[in-house]
Amino acid sequence: MNIVPYERKAHYYETDQMGVVHHSNYIRWFEEARVDFMDQLGLPFAKLEEEGIISPVVSISCSYKQSVKFDQRVLVSPYIKEYNGIKLIIEYKVAIKETGVICCTGESKHCFLVDGRPVSLKKASPRFDNLFNSLIKSEE
Amino acid sequence: MNIVPYERKAHYYETDQMGVVHHSNYIRWFEEARVDFMDQLGLPFAKLEEEGIISPVVSISCSYKQSVKFDQRVLVSPYIKEYNGIKLIIEYKVAIKETGVICCTGESKHCFLVDGRPVSLKKASPRFDNLFNSLIKSEE
Amino acid sequence: MNIVPYERKAHYYETDQMGVVHHSNYIRWFEEARVDFMDQLGLPFAKLEEEGIISPVVSISCSYKQSVKFDQRVLVSPYIKEYNGIKLIIEYKVAIKETGVICCTGESKHCFLVDGRPVSLKKASPRFDNLFNSLIKSEE
Amino acid sequence: MNIVPYERKAHYYETDQMGVVHHSNYIRWFEEARVDFMDQLGLPFAKLEEEGIISPVVSISCSYKQSVKFDQRVLVSPYIKEYNGIKLIIEYKVAIKETGVICCTGESKHCFLVDGRPVSLKKASPRFDNLFNSLIKSEE
Repeated sequence: MNIVPYERKAHYYETDQMGVVHHSNYIRWFEEARVDFMDQLGLPFAKLEEEGIISPVVSISCSYKQSVKFDQRVLVSPYIKEYNGIKLIIEYKVAIKETGVICCTGESKHCFLVDGRPVSLKKASPRFDNLFNSLIKSEE
Repeated sequence: MNIVPYERKAHYYETDQMGVVHHSNYIRWFEEARVDFMDQLGLPFAKLEEEGIISPVVSISCSYKQSVKFDQRVLVSPYIKEYNGIKLIIEYKVAIKETGVICCTGESKHCFLVDGRPVSLKKASPRFDNLFNSLIKSEE
Repeated sequence: MNIVPYERKAHYYETDQMGVVHHSNYIRWFEEARVDFMDQLGLPFAKLEEEGIISPVVSISCSYKQSVKFDQRVLVSPYIKEYNGIKLIIEYKVAIKETGVICCTGESKHCFLVDGRPVSLKKASPRFDNLFNSLIKSEE
Repeated sequence: MNIVPYERKAHYYETDQMGVVHHSNYIRWFEEARVDFMDQLGLPFAKLEEEGIISPVVSISCSYKQSVKFDQRVLVSPYIKEYNGIKLIIEYKVAIKETGVICCTGESKHCFLVDGRPVSLKKASPRFDNLFNSLIKSEE
């Protein structure tokens, strides 16, 4: 399956007085890219929620390499880094579209909850489990 | 009853590349001040919601007089401008604490909904109705 | 000239605990649409700033008709409502793309500053002045 | 020196449709706490900037333990975890004020730039260098 990077521009209100995008906003771009990624795969997070499963963020991290300026167009590429049924780690790269320069990288770690309790997707949702497994293998 | 203005500082992430607080944030400050105002009155919005009544924002407006800079301390003063049971209009003044200079003024208009339908607070919640009425009268 | 509405999705982080987009975010969508509008016209705000002219928001307003939910696709359409060289008023309509239902309308009022002082664009930037004039006339 | 934790409430606009504070906002709370911490120490970041030194965020991370709800009062406690003149790592703990329950922990890594180039604070600003050194030692 051919997944394209998530594309968007840096908005004016996302800049701070240093004249660049405030560092907290990249965490939000990761989320936008994650949602878009699942949409492209045909299994949006909304469908997971319809099955009664929520997938909260357990931890996030972000390393800043180069700042993004207002109106610059970026590409955010998410990858499945790790998945074992219980834990999902997604990696992100943010690059300036025009130059390909990497601006930041990061990752988000997720678990899966049913009624507030951690579950394994293997049992809770085989189709999402299959999807995440196939995404890891295809990258090996 | 003695209501004190809501006090807070301008945060770094609230500035934009013009070097001042982005204009959208004042709408959020109005909300913070509105919540604080009701808390001081002893009837927080949460209590209204406990009675099954929500009070969505129907419209907002804001006039910008002078920009606020990072780390400046401001006072936000809300006033009940109009109330008739069905409609509530709250006015706001944002002033630099140190100088008293007015930075912006604005207002938010609210209605009251039970199960998604507009209601009059006169019937739906006499104690909130009394409160809003007393706040208008005390200012006349 | 054929201007297309600005299109975007509602992001997860833009929702609040009512389960809909928080009212403050529409002000930011107006800005995104305004920037896109000028880009489409070939005269981005960045070019105005290159001429030493900034165009701050003097006031904004927004009326909320219907809430937008996470992942809904919206179209934001800006129109030049008023322009006289000194003052520019832009009107916005936000509609759900799929249904055409209007979610909110609003406007932003702008002035033009050189070195912090109000100027008329007639003298300060004839090409922007011509552009704004043509946009009003074309709508009459 | 007696440093008190940074105290604030969770705002309505900081919640998302899960009914809790959106995970990106904690990164902003870290910044608020960091600014407050330096203010309490008598050496605000603004003074560092006056000396021509900026201190950008090189990386951040955050682990989420328990969600924070609207209107809950939290305490954010920053600690200097590591400092060697070139690199500064600040650790944060966010706790519910009423219960003391830890909601999240995280850290931010900073470098120091003069004219866009990395410098050592030992030379660039002895008083900030002394401050950060004393903060590490006092915790050992």
